[in-house]
Amino acid sequence: MLEKIKGPEDVKKLCFQELTELAEDVRQRIIEITSKNGGHVAPSLGATDFIIALLKVFNPLHDNIVFDVGHQAYAYKILTGRNESFDTLRTLGGISGFNNIFESKYDSFTVGHASTSISATLGIAIAKEQKSLKGNSIAVIGDGALTGGMAFEALNNAGHMQKNIIVILNDNEMSISQNVGALQNYMTNVLVSKSYNSMKKQVWDLSQSLPDKVRRTFIYGAQKIEESLMNIIVPNIIFEDLGFKYVGPIDGHDIPRLCRIFMKAKDNIVGPILIHLITQKGRGYSHSETDSTKYHGVGPYNQETGKTDSFVGKSWSQVFGDKLCEMAEKNKDIVAITAAMGDGTGLKVFSEKYKTKFFDVGIAEQHAVTLAAGMAIKGLRPFVAIYSSFMQRALDQVIHDVALQKLPVVFCIDRAGVVGEDGFTHHGVFDLSFLQFIPNLTIIAPATDKELQEALDWSIEYKDGPVAIRYPRGIACNDLKQTPIENKEYTIAITGVGHSFETANKLYEMILREFVEVGQVNQYSNENILLLNPIFLKPYNKEIYDKVYKECKYHIVIEENAEIGGFASRLALDHSLSECKTLPFGVPDYFIEHGKIEELRDIIGLTAEKIYQNIKDLIK
Amino acid sequence: MLEKIKGPEDVKKLCFQELTELAEDVRQRIIEITSKNGGHVAPSLGATDFIIALLKVFNPLHDNIVFDVGHQAYAYKILTGRNESFDTLRTLGGISGFNNIFESKYDSFTVGHASTSISATLGIAIAKEQKSLKGNSIAVIGDGALTGGMAFEALNNAGHMQKNIIVILNDNEMSISQNVGALQNYMTNVLVSKSYNSMKKQVWDLSQSLPDKVRRTFIYGAQKIEESLMNIIVPNIIFEDLGFKYVGPIDGHDIPRLCRIFMKAKDNIVGPILIHLITQKGRGYSHSETDSTKYHGVGPYNQETGKTDSFVGKSWSQVFGDKLCEMAEKNKDIVAITAAMGDGTGLKVFSEKYKTKFFDVGIAEQHAVTLAAGMAIKGLRPFVAIYSSFMQRALDQVIHDVALQKLPVVFCIDRAGVVGEDGFTHHGVFDLSFLQFIPNLTIIAPATDKELQEALDWSIEYKDGPVAIRYPRGIACNDLKQTPIENKEYTIAITGVGHSFETANKLYEMILREFVEVGQVNQYSNENILLLNPIFLKPYNKEIYDKVYKECKYHIVIEENAEIGGFASRLALDHSLSECKTLPFGVPDYFIEHGKIEELRDIIGLTAEKIYQNIKDLIK
Repeated sequence: MLEKIKGPEDVKKLCFQELTELAEDVRQRIIEITSKNGGHVAPSLGATDFIIALLKVFNPLHDNIVFDVGHQAYAYKILTGRNESFDTLRTLGGISGFNNIFESKYDSFTVGHASTSISATLGIAIAKEQKSLKGNSIAVIGDGALTGGMAFEALNNAGHMQKNIIVILNDNEMSISQNVGALQNYMTNVLVSKSYNSMKKQVWDLSQSLPDKVRRTFIYGAQKIEESLMNIIVPNIIFEDLGFKYVGPIDGHDIPRLCRIFMKAKDNIVGPILIHLITQKGRGYSHSETDSTKYHGVGPYNQETGKTDSFVGKSWSQVFGDKLCEMAEKNKDIVAITAAMGDGTGLKVFSEKYKTKFFDVGIAEQHAVTLAAGMAIKGLRPFVAIYSSFMQRALDQVIHDVALQKLPVVFCIDRAGVVGEDGFTHHGVFDLSFLQFIPNLTIIAPATDKELQEALDWSIEYKDGPVAIRYPRGIACNDLKQTPIENKEYTIAITGVGHSFETANKLYEMILREFVEVGQVNQYSNENILLLNPIFLKPYNKEIYDKVYKECKYHIVIEENAEIGGFASRLALDHSLSECKTLPFGVPDYFIEHGKIEELRDIIGLTAEKIYQNIKDLIK
Repeated sequence: MLEKIKGPEDVKKLCFQELTELAEDVRQRIIEITSKNGGHVAPSLGATDFIIALLKVFNPLHDNIVFDVGHQAYAYKILTGRNESFDTLRTLGGISGFNNIFESKYDSFTVGHASTSISATLGIAIAKEQKSLKGNSIAVIGDGALTGGMAFEALNNAGHMQKNIIVILNDNEMSISQNVGALQNYMTNVLVSKSYNSMKKQVWDLSQSLPDKVRRTFIYGAQKIEESLMNIIVPNIIFEDLGFKYVGPIDGHDIPRLCRIFMKAKDNIVGPILIHLITQKGRGYSHSETDSTKYHGVGPYNQETGKTDSFVGKSWSQVFGDKLCEMAEKNKDIVAITAAMGDGTGLKVFSEKYKTKFFDVGIAEQHAVTLAAGMAIKGLRPFVAIYSSFMQRALDQVIHDVALQKLPVVFCIDRAGVVGEDGFTHHGVFDLSFLQFIPNLTIIAPATDKELQEALDWSIEYKDGPVAIRYPRGIACNDLKQTPIENKEYTIAITGVGHSFETANKLYEMILREFVEVGQVNQYSNENILLLNPIFLKPYNKEIYDKVYKECKYHIVIEENAEIGGFASRLALDHSLSECKTLPFGVPDYFIEHGKIEELRDIIGLTAEKIYQNIKDLIK
């Protein structure tokens, strides 16, 4: 069926039976490609049916659909003219793993981070009203993303303004790993509420006694009644308190029924409406149905067995998680906080071993940080593990609630640097720039697994203020040449910040090798080149850098962070009276696309080869 | 009565009658001092009664009370050993306008920004549980602060965890100006709900027919019943859906009744409880009762007449607001968004003139920014006016929802630089550092009112991406000497960023004058010193700064922003191969206290005099 679909208009032509077949084809296509390229399998499989129903009912060019996060939108991509190019999912130059306005006219809003969709949709609806544009404005948001404060800000504001928006709540009773939050408890309670279920049961019992033909019509009729009565049967649900008309809960895999509901919403909209769908994460693929957390976001896997490639070595996240477990054995005050990323940040083992000391607050980075501040002020030692790009959500809390009070909170900033296939919404290339200026904050960037462990050990001993430790995605580096500083004069210094010290090492070797070849060993031998792994970025080692800026002609600084506001800019400013020239190699001033990490480093010029090409004329 | 109170233990000794007298004394004291020093009069008057009740019932050393924002806590300060020093409120070296852990052992958490209290209190409660510490954990939050997403994140998380916290909702049906949001509508509906009011009326009617003596006992009994029945009478209130036990609504000025309720909460705590108080903002002072918005935060005023000092000249905020009104007349796509700061950001006139184009979203900066993104993507031209220090809340949204999509949203960043009496939580000295690294973002810092107007005009013409315009608190500068750049060589360049150009001007004059005196006119005359007002910080004028770094020996850069990550650091890095030395004068790496703006500039070395002292040896 899928081969017939060139664009969303083709979906409209299909009957319900064909739509159901289409859903199977789309799922197969998602599995085919994600098994090769990796990706967000389980969310996209769960959302396939209602996306098909949305495309049957709405016109995505005029009815703007804003997907929250966008990792559930593969079916949408496949059905809006991107089936062929779907082969290139998450590869360099290929289809993005999230919705992206630069990729397709059918993508209404670029997404990647959670909880933005209702705000964006409300803005779109207001603009349509003011500019007399036609069409619906639809947000598709998961129950996990509802734990984010800005989703509440938007619900609260939309309920107050009574603009015409449709919020489709894709409730799979799972955020990324497991649901946390009273709102989710509440929604689950509604689903199992007595009155609702007893009615369901009575209808079902009654239908059993009917002859087959009548039974079908009867169930159809009962469903229709259920749809209209739902907000009477489930009274006073929280969304109605917030000013939304509520419809649901509805089976998010029943395409004909979804089409009927969407049709009603399309025609009858007066003010904001929330349609509550219940979906199964990972639907239609046995492996992802069984373990939807594993298949939330996954690397390449075997279609038959579901097995993913095993990596050689331990990830930075695991090094962190294991070390924290070890530390928690000795120090009873250690607690760990995550914002819905327990697995991703390496805290799975900790969460099982120290149940009462592990806090998953949901997708709520702001709360996570201030919660840690409250804990720290009464003597606990919180470790807050958040991805670099999500830390952007909690800047004010780090400044205002933690640093201002000099509280000993440790921020474990995972996924710092280029992250690869997730692309421009997820690269962690700004954290140094938005943390470096915060008074009282210590910043550490370990270059090896051992240094990460030592940084954690150091942090627990340090009680005078917060500490941020940044480390990248991927397998931790476990051995690097570090040249001891000798008591002599150097001509060139190379600083590699954190995991970029590996690149600095390569560059160092290249310079040595090249100069040996051209016979300049004396001038730029090992003797004259200083290779530096600063580890502490703030405060940095003043003595060493004073030496660098006193003696060297050039100081090459490599960091996987924006050049603007990065470590090089700090050093250049602090030593502006020196004759030594700082040569910064950081992330350039544009958003970096998606692709393999090594491909991206090459594009932005952060490989040893590219840096060498850049500097060789200068330093010769 | 107040003179008897040396500390909170003295409050405990008073009977209800005396507590009521004390409340009057405290109010008088608040008015006495704020009329001289300025401050948050209306919030603090409204909170005085329940603060007295809190101190009667709880022990603030063990029962941690976290005030949200903290601008309502003057009574708390006065009654916890700070009555005498209250004379120094908001002055240099004196009492802070907010709670501050460095000021008093009775302040449990440092505050200033909204919506943090529930997160902090939950953290405190968890720490107390894990460390077996005694005492209650209490958050005092206004209804306005509840519109902030992080308050919801915290409610949701606290409801889920069922820890023992008490949230006191101080509902004055006003946030800073006026309430916005469905949640507030909902709460107001509860208050005017039929069943609740009809019961009240019946009780009242009945009581009228009773003899005086019996009547009093009757009313007392009725109140007791009301307290226990409240959560039956107001069923299913939103906070209960979120897992809180709900008590209220209760008259927040009835000290005896408040004491009874608090006593119950203190003894019977099992899981989170929310006590809903109804208070009158500005209570007890006729002028602030009549216009609580004016007296929310106010400068010195006349106690008798309530009149505030009138300023000479127009504030930056007013210049912005007036100009936007003018622009909106011509351009129908212009809309204005504020996060509960309509008056403060100068949008009052706009909000009255363009009702349908003005959006006050509540204290919800994250939503404000992404709402603007949604509007812009459909062709509206949103101007988002937010104070610099509150923009810290929306960093991720600026990056992820606006800059990534190159949307033409204009951020009008008010209160940039040192803000004076509000102190370290409110200084806007980080915005350049957290905005400068964002790709696609244009940053403008006007030095005069005319330049601000021109910047706004420019912004509406520019459609290729977002623009941030930063300007300070206070009266706009309306004329400054600008030296034309001549076609000759300069020895020294002085850059004044935005409003610091005024300082740069003074410094320029000082250098000229001084060198004339010491007879060095030839070397450093007007001829050789270049005075620069860059206006555009990103992208900056490459041609001019190339000239500076090619010709000059020194480049002095003055900016009221953190030195780390500021404009000087950008220039120093970009021109690291130049022989010209950058001499940065920005905000040093610590949090700046409160006091008059000029006093603070002197402390941090950002006056022309201080800068001159610093550089004169170097440049001679």
